[in-house]
Amino acid sequence: MSTQFDVVALCQAARLASRQLAQLTESQKNELLLAMADGLVAAMPQILAANALDMANARTNNLASAMQDRLLLTEARLQQLAQAVRHIAALPDPVGQIRQMQPRPNGIQVGKMRIPLGVIAMIYEARPNVTADAGALCLKSGNAVILRGGREALQSSLAIAEVLQQVLSDHQINPAAISVLPDPDRAVLLTLLQQQSTVDLVIPRGGEGLIRFVSEHSKIPVIQHYKGICHLFIDKAADVEKGLALLLNGKTQRPGVCNALETLLVHQAIADEFLPIAAKALASAEVQVYCCDKSITYFENAQAASPTQFDTEYLSLAMSVRVVSDFAQAVAHIEQHSSGHTEVICTQDISRAQRFIKVINSAVVMVNASSRFSDGGELGLGAEIGISTSKLHAYGPMGLESLTTEKYIVIGDGQVRL
Amino acid sequence: MSTQFDVVALCQAARLASRQLAQLTESQKNELLLAMADGLVAAMPQILAANALDMANARTNNLASAMQDRLLLTEARLQQLAQAVRHIAALPDPVGQIRQMQPRPNGIQVGKMRIPLGVIAMIYEARPNVTADAGALCLKSGNAVILRGGREALQSSLAIAEVLQQVLSDHQINPAAISVLPDPDRAVLLTLLQQQSTVDLVIPRGGEGLIRFVSEHSKIPVIQHYKGICHLFIDKAADVEKGLALLLNGKTQRPGVCNALETLLVHQAIADEFLPIAAKALASAEVQVYCCDKSITYFENAQAASPTQFDTEYLSLAMSVRVVSDFAQAVAHIEQHSSGHTEVICTQDISRAQRFIKVINSAVVMVNASSRFSDGGELGLGAEIGISTSKLHAYGPMGLESLTTEKYIVIGDGQVRL
Repeated sequence: MSTQFDVVALCQAARLASRQLAQLTESQKNELLLAMADGLVAAMPQILAANALDMANARTNNLASAMQDRLLLTEARLQQLAQAVRHIAALPDPVGQIRQMQPRPNGIQVGKMRIPLGVIAMIYEARPNVTADAGALCLKSGNAVILRGGREALQSSLAIAEVLQQVLSDHQINPAAISVLPDPDRAVLLTLLQQQSTVDLVIPRGGEGLIRFVSEHSKIPVIQHYKGICHLFIDKAADVEKGLALLLNGKTQRPGVCNALETLLVHQAIADEFLPIAAKALASAEVQVYCCDKSITYFENAQAASPTQFDTEYLSLAMSVRVVSDFAQAVAHIEQHSSGHTEVICTQDISRAQRFIKVINSAVVMVNASSRFSDGGELGLGAEIGISTSKLHAYGPMGLESLTTEKYIVIGDGQVRL
Repeated sequence: MSTQFDVVALCQAARLASRQLAQLTESQKNELLLAMADGLVAAMPQILAANALDMANARTNNLASAMQDRLLLTEARLQQLAQAVRHIAALPDPVGQIRQMQPRPNGIQVGKMRIPLGVIAMIYEARPNVTADAGALCLKSGNAVILRGGREALQSSLAIAEVLQQVLSDHQINPAAISVLPDPDRAVLLTLLQQQSTVDLVIPRGGEGLIRFVSEHSKIPVIQHYKGICHLFIDKAADVEKGLALLLNGKTQRPGVCNALETLLVHQAIADEFLPIAAKALASAEVQVYCCDKSITYFENAQAASPTQFDTEYLSLAMSVRVVSDFAQAVAHIEQHSSGHTEVICTQDISRAQRFIKVINSAVVMVNASSRFSDGGELGLGAEIGISTSKLHAYGPMGLESLTTEKYIVIGDGQVRL
């Protein structure tokens, strides 16, 4: 198109709407969310028709079948989507929580109150479910949201957003509180990323390319999550049974996700005991292994690890294996190769368990538990808006609280500074 | 100089040192800080000699007298500086705190542990005291720090840093944990701001020009604090005595700082009662006022407010005054003109006090207390590393906790995901 969509006006409208949202009570927000869930079910015919257009385009453009599967909406999937929105309604509202209200020596009371960030921009790929999910999470936390999904899902996203906006309008809420960027052009995205005066946070969800593009071009703070190179360290005091279960679960239960294991580190003192069993189990699960020169002798059909092997996120039934001489070498390996996502130690030794927790500063550090638990739902956040592997503002799985900040509140009785 | 100082290597060394710092216990850090305080006192002759070089340059370059005053070190000021470092040693250490450790249904225990951010870059002006102060705050919170002060204070800063580094070396701590950028060239600063792989956070302290320069050029997250346009709203139910005290204290106790008042808003129902007294008091204090057309009639020697008047940070004995028709207009005025720093309501009406706290989302929102309390020391943070007026990561006065983040920790007994 020759004239660009007015994304600046969209952001300003969202900023205005955010003021109204910030003042809603939890009951009001829950009422909106439940109405949205009902609305999504009621509007199934329209949403499925819009999705059929996206699917037809996807077939014409020979979109990869995995992407087509993510794009596809069905009655069952829409019911799940509505259920997810109802689930978000049931989560506790972080907004308005007050903590640490304490008197100062002069009698003023000082505390902190949790408030919404304001306006969030979500940048994601061709997943229409994120439109409803992110819209609901931002609403529950009192934030306006601008949704910019992949162009392949645009018709589906617009149809879903129409339902959400209708509910807002029906309840006298400014519909600019949830809006879908209707123009998938990259130039429009670039303009969006310059709106630091109206947008408070950008959350990109998707592949590394998308996240790097957003991080590089954004003037707005970005919550980044690049990749998950998660490590399992089998300590010399490991329980071999547990270690094997953590290995198989971490690598094979769902290999294509960021909390799957990519690297197995084994203490040399337990290598003779652990690796033969591990080799057998990994072979049964058809996991391709890339080994250091010490571990390779335990495997059939293993390949030698190349110099960059230990920086590889396979996202498939493949993994790197290394025998380490001691605890310190395991820590040094993780410090060098970790992406800051999730690391696991398997040990029965409480001192080394404590030390691992202390020295490893990835977003999630585990003792004797599967890396696959590293997700908002499993860790008890109720819902997940993303995972941050950078330490600012949020670190690790992000729930509703990550979409808020705290202001100071001060109650006095006329005190002045001397 | 023709070859640029190797700032990349400096940042890498700081990153390495940060791993050692993160593992120190509170006692170890306090021992270092107390030794640094003693070291600053013992090295007085060398530090004062270095400062004399800076002062001679300052006089040669006709530096403004206020800047010369900030630059000057004396025996008394160095004693204060050492005392400030001892005070930081006495603050509680946030690192290692664990909260919300709770079981999940499958028996894993999930909680959060506070950890240092890693490497902080402080960018500031010609204030040698910041070198010791920021160095001590970063050390106490387990972070390595790169200090880049104004070139006018370079010799003083290097002399102070030498003391701090000597203490580190004496205790077998990598001295790269605290380093001063020895090259004040802007090109070096620009290179520093690109080191996002080794530096976690940039904190600029100083004038708006410095902060904008850093924000615009940094690839590293920046904590921003532009300006403080702080408002006092005299509600119709205000206690006039308290209102007058808050006005005078907020405007005149120290007009040159960001938590001083810049704008007085008065509810029209109390204008006849409040403004004549306020006019008299402000005139006695020699405050120049810039008035809306309703308030101007109450003042002698007032000037009419220009269109940009209410966006002005005077930092001097001057302020803007406006009569508002009601509570809503006061809130709308603040939303439009606030810099997000500090706003105060003076009222005896609990409903409007609560409403003000709820709807105003500046970093610090106060009822019946002076805006001058908006500072880390006064709010009970113990020390202040800066003030953030952007909502990400930290909002408002920043203490030691702002230099940390939280990782998730998970303790299981072999649990896997089903």
